[in-house]
Amino acid sequence: MQFPFMGSRSVDDFLQGTQAALAGGTTMIIDFAIPQKGGSLIQAFETWRSWADPKVCCDYSLHVAVTWWSDQVKEEMKILTQDKGVNSFKMFMAYKDLYMVRDEELYAAFSQCKEIGAIALVHAENGDLIAEGAKKMLALGITGPEGHELCRPEAVEAEATLRAITIASAVNCPLYVVHVMSKSAAKVIADARRDGKVVYGEPIAASLGTDGTHYWHKEWHHAAHHVMGPPLRPDPSTPDFLMNLLANGDLTTTGTDHCTFNTCQKALGKDDFTKIPNGVNGVEDRMSVIWEKGVHSGKMDENRFVAVTSTNAAKVFNLYPRKGRIAVGSDADIVIWDPKATRTISAKTHHQAVNFNIFEGMVCHGVPVVTISRGKVVYEAGVFNVTAGDGKFIPRKPFAEYIYKRIKQRDQTCTPIPVERKPYQGEVVTGKI
Amino acid sequence: MQFPFMGSRSVDDFLQGTQAALAGGTTMIIDFAIPQKGGSLIQAFETWRSWADPKVCCDYSLHVAVTWWSDQVKEEMKILTQDKGVNSFKMFMAYKDLYMVRDEELYAAFSQCKEIGAIALVHAENGDLIAEGAKKMLALGITGPEGHELCRPEAVEAEATLRAITIASAVNCPLYVVHVMSKSAAKVIADARRDGKVVYGEPIAASLGTDGTHYWHKEWHHAAHHVMGPPLRPDPSTPDFLMNLLANGDLTTTGTDHCTFNTCQKALGKDDFTKIPNGVNGVEDRMSVIWEKGVHSGKMDENRFVAVTSTNAAKVFNLYPRKGRIAVGSDADIVIWDPKATRTISAKTHHQAVNFNIFEGMVCHGVPVVTISRGKVVYEAGVFNVTAGDGKFIPRKPFAEYIYKRIKQRDQTCTPIPVERKPYQGEVVTGKI
Amino acid sequence: MQFPFMGSRSVDDFLQGTQAALAGGTTMIIDFAIPQKGGSLIQAFETWRSWADPKVCCDYSLHVAVTWWSDQVKEEMKILTQDKGVNSFKMFMAYKDLYMVRDEELYAAFSQCKEIGAIALVHAENGDLIAEGAKKMLALGITGPEGHELCRPEAVEAEATLRAITIASAVNCPLYVVHVMSKSAAKVIADARRDGKVVYGEPIAASLGTDGTHYWHKEWHHAAHHVMGPPLRPDPSTPDFLMNLLANGDLTTTGTDHCTFNTCQKALGKDDFTKIPNGVNGVEDRMSVIWEKGVHSGKMDENRFVAVTSTNAAKVFNLYPRKGRIAVGSDADIVIWDPKATRTISAKTHHQAVNFNIFEGMVCHGVPVVTISRGKVVYEAGVFNVTAGDGKFIPRKPFAEYIYKRIKQRDQTCTPIPVERKPYQGEVVTGKI
Amino acid sequence: MQFPFMGSRSVDDFLQGTQAALAGGTTMIIDFAIPQKGGSLIQAFETWRSWADPKVCCDYSLHVAVTWWSDQVKEEMKILTQDKGVNSFKMFMAYKDLYMVRDEELYAAFSQCKEIGAIALVHAENGDLIAEGAKKMLALGITGPEGHELCRPEAVEAEATLRAITIASAVNCPLYVVHVMSKSAAKVIADARRDGKVVYGEPIAASLGTDGTHYWHKEWHHAAHHVMGPPLRPDPSTPDFLMNLLANGDLTTTGTDHCTFNTCQKALGKDDFTKIPNGVNGVEDRMSVIWEKGVHSGKMDENRFVAVTSTNAAKVFNLYPRKGRIAVGSDADIVIWDPKATRTISAKTHHQAVNFNIFEGMVCHGVPVVTISRGKVVYEAGVFNVTAGDGKFIPRKPFAEYIYKRIKQRDQTCTPIPVERKPYQGEVVTGKI
Repeated sequence: MQFPFMGSRSVDDFLQGTQAALAGGTTMIIDFAIPQKGGSLIQAFETWRSWADPKVCCDYSLHVAVTWWSDQVKEEMKILTQDKGVNSFKMFMAYKDLYMVRDEELYAAFSQCKEIGAIALVHAENGDLIAEGAKKMLALGITGPEGHELCRPEAVEAEATLRAITIASAVNCPLYVVHVMSKSAAKVIADARRDGKVVYGEPIAASLGTDGTHYWHKEWHHAAHHVMGPPLRPDPSTPDFLMNLLANGDLTTTGTDHCTFNTCQKALGKDDFTKIPNGVNGVEDRMSVIWEKGVHSGKMDENRFVAVTSTNAAKVFNLYPRKGRIAVGSDADIVIWDPKATRTISAKTHHQAVNFNIFEGMVCHGVPVVTISRGKVVYEAGVFNVTAGDGKFIPRKPFAEYIYKRIKQRDQTCTPIPVERKPYQGEVVTGKI
Repeated sequence: MQFPFMGSRSVDDFLQGTQAALAGGTTMIIDFAIPQKGGSLIQAFETWRSWADPKVCCDYSLHVAVTWWSDQVKEEMKILTQDKGVNSFKMFMAYKDLYMVRDEELYAAFSQCKEIGAIALVHAENGDLIAEGAKKMLALGITGPEGHELCRPEAVEAEATLRAITIASAVNCPLYVVHVMSKSAAKVIADARRDGKVVYGEPIAASLGTDGTHYWHKEWHHAAHHVMGPPLRPDPSTPDFLMNLLANGDLTTTGTDHCTFNTCQKALGKDDFTKIPNGVNGVEDRMSVIWEKGVHSGKMDENRFVAVTSTNAAKVFNLYPRKGRIAVGSDADIVIWDPKATRTISAKTHHQAVNFNIFEGMVCHGVPVVTISRGKVVYEAGVFNVTAGDGKFIPRKPFAEYIYKRIKQRDQTCTPIPVERKPYQGEVVTGKI
Repeated sequence: MQFPFMGSRSVDDFLQGTQAALAGGTTMIIDFAIPQKGGSLIQAFETWRSWADPKVCCDYSLHVAVTWWSDQVKEEMKILTQDKGVNSFKMFMAYKDLYMVRDEELYAAFSQCKEIGAIALVHAENGDLIAEGAKKMLALGITGPEGHELCRPEAVEAEATLRAITIASAVNCPLYVVHVMSKSAAKVIADARRDGKVVYGEPIAASLGTDGTHYWHKEWHHAAHHVMGPPLRPDPSTPDFLMNLLANGDLTTTGTDHCTFNTCQKALGKDDFTKIPNGVNGVEDRMSVIWEKGVHSGKMDENRFVAVTSTNAAKVFNLYPRKGRIAVGSDADIVIWDPKATRTISAKTHHQAVNFNIFEGMVCHGVPVVTISRGKVVYEAGVFNVTAGDGKFIPRKPFAEYIYKRIKQRDQTCTPIPVERKPYQGEVVTGKI
Repeated sequence: MQFPFMGSRSVDDFLQGTQAALAGGTTMIIDFAIPQKGGSLIQAFETWRSWADPKVCCDYSLHVAVTWWSDQVKEEMKILTQDKGVNSFKMFMAYKDLYMVRDEELYAAFSQCKEIGAIALVHAENGDLIAEGAKKMLALGITGPEGHELCRPEAVEAEATLRAITIASAVNCPLYVVHVMSKSAAKVIADARRDGKVVYGEPIAASLGTDGTHYWHKEWHHAAHHVMGPPLRPDPSTPDFLMNLLANGDLTTTGTDHCTFNTCQKALGKDDFTKIPNGVNGVEDRMSVIWEKGVHSGKMDENRFVAVTSTNAAKVFNLYPRKGRIAVGSDADIVIWDPKATRTISAKTHHQAVNFNIFEGMVCHGVPVVTISRGKVVYEAGVFNVTAGDGKFIPRKPFAEYIYKRIKQRDQTCTPIPVERKPYQGEVVTGKI
């Protein structure tokens, strides 16, 4: 929400964005606080809190990004975890020179996450390849939104995903891959899980509900409004594939990467796709899209729907059982869902600030009727009953059992030990050649 | 339990077998009632009940096998489901001429399962190939237990598994593959689940805890005691692989295929492996083996342990929430588990009747200390407090929500419809050539 | 050619069909002689020769189908191999009740192929599932050509492919899968080859050049003209996928399954897709389609093109080096190819008898300019210089080195041997229960 | 040969090493010239030539390594290709701070290879992970040779392999992965080839003939003599797996990475595995090991043996048809092979300088009897008839048809073009936020 990015600021602020969330049946969000390279993580965290606290209409929490590495960063991660309620850190493998960190920095950041009991999040794309690919596309005269996908095809996402998993596994650090956009990246995650890796994949409303053929749309603004990173994929079988993996357990949660820009903002890149602000809508649409494509289609049942839209995220980020559960002692964050009703998604009727909706025209079975936040009805039949600041920042503790139980056990039982040998006694070379 | 099979009868009867279960921390079993070809399913069911009811020390239920096909069988399946508390039927793709059914019979049986709301179980091995393979091995002079594996290698299991899934999918019938023994068969199941198929795989204590290298053991009786169908696999990485898939959700439940024969019974096949009664122990060992290889190893946490040893089976077979859950209103079937304690599995100390244990010498972290059945302590610190017949037959209703919710939804939304075309008006061939 | 099938006879006879082959740059064909169930293989072979010999314009050979099993069939296979120049036999896993054989018959036929040094060919589809699927589609009111695909989806082909490979592997018999139509079946073959199996896959002009979306075409005759078995696949990424596997060596050869029917013949099934005669064109189009989709696209080079269109088939079927090679001592069967020229495929201009072309409108780079058969120019610039009967039947010897070298070596080095054990001396059960 | 590395120099010089090659049936080698970071490629090339020319007994050629990046390096690559007969450059993704280059340098080097018609070779391991892993192992007290494998497990090789393929594919540059050591890396290559990538994988004598269980050998020197990078793998099914892929075409050629150190040199790392000079024998053993494990086992026939040991390498490196073929006009480099004879590999009898052989005791069917170099018998029945310097440097031209035909064609037909759109006319944001 209200993210300053690529020379612009996303139009949904913490007020309108969280209202849209509530209207869509989502009762809590976790946003990202992102420091510049060289900047303080704690300061970024505080900045984002200062933006969010007065405005939020639903509860929220914050991931903090690690965009560079130093002893200060390492120390601040610890402080954020111990004192500030942050148990998740995001590393970018893309956005070269802006946010991107290299393998040894990933290794260091993952190691620190492991040490302090946080979960590592990655934006998995090979930033070097994107930078080179973008140059190549522009050199070929490809300046439109299709160039955005062409310069960062699936393989760029899959490669980085495997790399992140390999590094995290070397550290025995739990890993969470945000915005899984492609079949090949999802397959990498699913294969890693078969191999016993502690990794979680999060497809998003966009990748589950639409596809990248839109980048070839004849109207520039239509194509540009689908620009996000990693991009939607031209392979039209992608959403079905991802939903199957979400249904069977290979993918775990669902997000939105909600970051919206109006057409006039997208137009910053009208002559050069690399300047189009990246981001699409989803915070209001997520629940409906997943119900339609997941439950109505018969791919998952209602229980799995609850798991992938709410409970699993609560467990991974250590909000469970306060969030993600309806029970005595839990926050009464509840949405009443009418599976028989239908509605049609449209920018004309949505509560999001942006003037375009990537799911425009999608008829969704299943409609959120009433949304309840901590026991209070905050949205009912199209009417909000909520004030800016009603939402609260929810701190999260480290070492979430759901992810760290196995991690700790493996540290105990899987650490290699030296082979016992009589020391070698023979002649040894001492000089150099 | 007390299964008449291959010219012998398994030595654990419903008394000793269920006691062993309780001692191992298992509070309910589901056994198989298996009619001969041409025999009545209902009669088989009643026979098994007459054997079990007076003896069982824990609750139990019965799957019924479909070993041949006719309108009578079809009708009896319906009656068993409606009146007798049976919601699962097992079909053998192996044991040619004895129990094996062919593809069109599988299709018919799966169709009827779907119709009546039952789940189809399959023993997945290609019976024709086994029959030919056995002849070939004997012709090569291979008469020992290693011939048992050589005549039915992994591919024979994987092939049948894919075939069963393909047929069940054509019918949109939920499928449950019993005793998953090999990496390749497990991979077939996992791939099918990625593809959205409603299929569940059940590895067993044996395939999770030991391997088929034992068939090459120099002592005949040792090798023979590992003979079961499908066989354990010589690939020593099999148990780890299966456990990883059990941990990540690709496999769902765990069974035992407990069917034990003493050495003198195994010796029926001392000159011909095809005559060795098939079956191994597991009912007492299952929980400990899975804890050791799954939880202690760090592959899964305690919650997943409960899911794969109890809850998931309760859901699949529609016993949930009566079984598989600790809550008000559920049966108080509880085991108190000491994760710090260790014990060593041995035929000398186990409660199973058989004089051999395939897990002999395995040191297991995690010991069942107290077992409670429907609120009553039935086993504590090595002492039983239970009488033959204390267990009850638990009837199961059809259309388990856990498996049928998606099935029904797909019937509604995925059924193809005809393409609208103007009928063809041109010349039509009328004669034959 | 001129195949009596499904109440009709394919319109390309051995004259027009082989002329079309020459015009397309193909200098030899292998057709199928197919006896009815219960019929003599030798008689079928002789019948086909009597049809072909007077008419063929290019050299040809014959596979013979095994559509039932008996000692007579077994003996006739031997005679055909020893005396008649047949080293390949085809088994149908589909066309239930007409041509289909079951697993134990496959096992027997593969065993005999192995014994006599022939290669086993399979039409890999599960005939039971097709029969049931067809009933289901008709019951749903789906009578049009789309029902043809819906009743036999990819999984039906992939399942049978895996089954055939598993059975052939049990016998150590080389296997050749004709008309590979789907990504999943091709993947099964490629995986089996990775596993060391001696199996070859043959995609065809149709599966490499077009796809099954045509079954949903609004004009009935257009859709019907694409009906063949196994069907073309609706997944539009299929041709590219198959071509990649042909390029990298996972698939080995290319065929056509050329079997053409005019619209009025296809119309036999105008009210019931199961009555549409199965078959499409390809004999004239194959070389051009593969050049266009394979070489012009950059997927393979010219040498691989020669291998997959000619040399590999010559090696597999033991025609090499007489065929499949340009060298002293080989038949001078040559096509002169102009890679710069282009032509557009059309039923209006093709030499095939059928009044429809499934590649209609495809612009092909690469044109056969001159075709030479055994040293004589038989086709040049659109003009034939050939007479019916100029072609010869080419006998083929068994035990082709290309496929049997490894088979024989494995028989020697991979046959299992018994484990040496002291015999079991203990008590043995003698009575029955 | 005579490679200065890790504080030592490999013991086989160009005299003894090439003699050993001839004794093993290999008539040409390609070695690596490796400049230090900052060093001149041309100077390295000349240095290696000055070492080799006076000593070589068989023909040879040189790959040149790119261990850093600059305009000078780029220019020298061009000169080496145009003037010095080098058409292949090797990049290290491991040996951090010594030889390792990063992704953007790989991109640049691959781009230049493509430009000048060379093939890119990679040592595919993640150097950052190895560096961190080594620290970790030493911190755990693991100083023995098993630490070498533990700090760089399979995933480290597979990750880098996928990364190299992804980068090369972005550039459309042909890629050759040297020393494929693991199942997972080989699978990455095979999958990429299925996907149409122009990539070649080279397993070596060591990975095809032995495995990494030796790192746990109780005798330090035995374990240390197996140390090479990437390491042999503990999974004992690795050699069979790699041989299957070599047989079916997923892997293309075979090398040795021959780089031998005596025990006293290996002892440099007796207290710290990171100081053990990396390298194993193979130049003499390669042909025999592949015959034994590939041909004698029935995995491949003699023709494939010739392809993977000679012809394919000649094609990839543009030495064909001068090398890799027996025909008029080709160099008469011939080995006469006795498939019936057997010999036992041993350090006591081999011609390699090193005092250990990793294949010690392997009984090999198939023995090279006579070796002929450019028409002259140079080795017969154990006796050399060759003088230092008899071998020649063989220059290689760029743009080898075997690999570049497809590359060029793809450049022509697969380059994306811009979508035609009317330019966006709406409001554009001009200011920054």
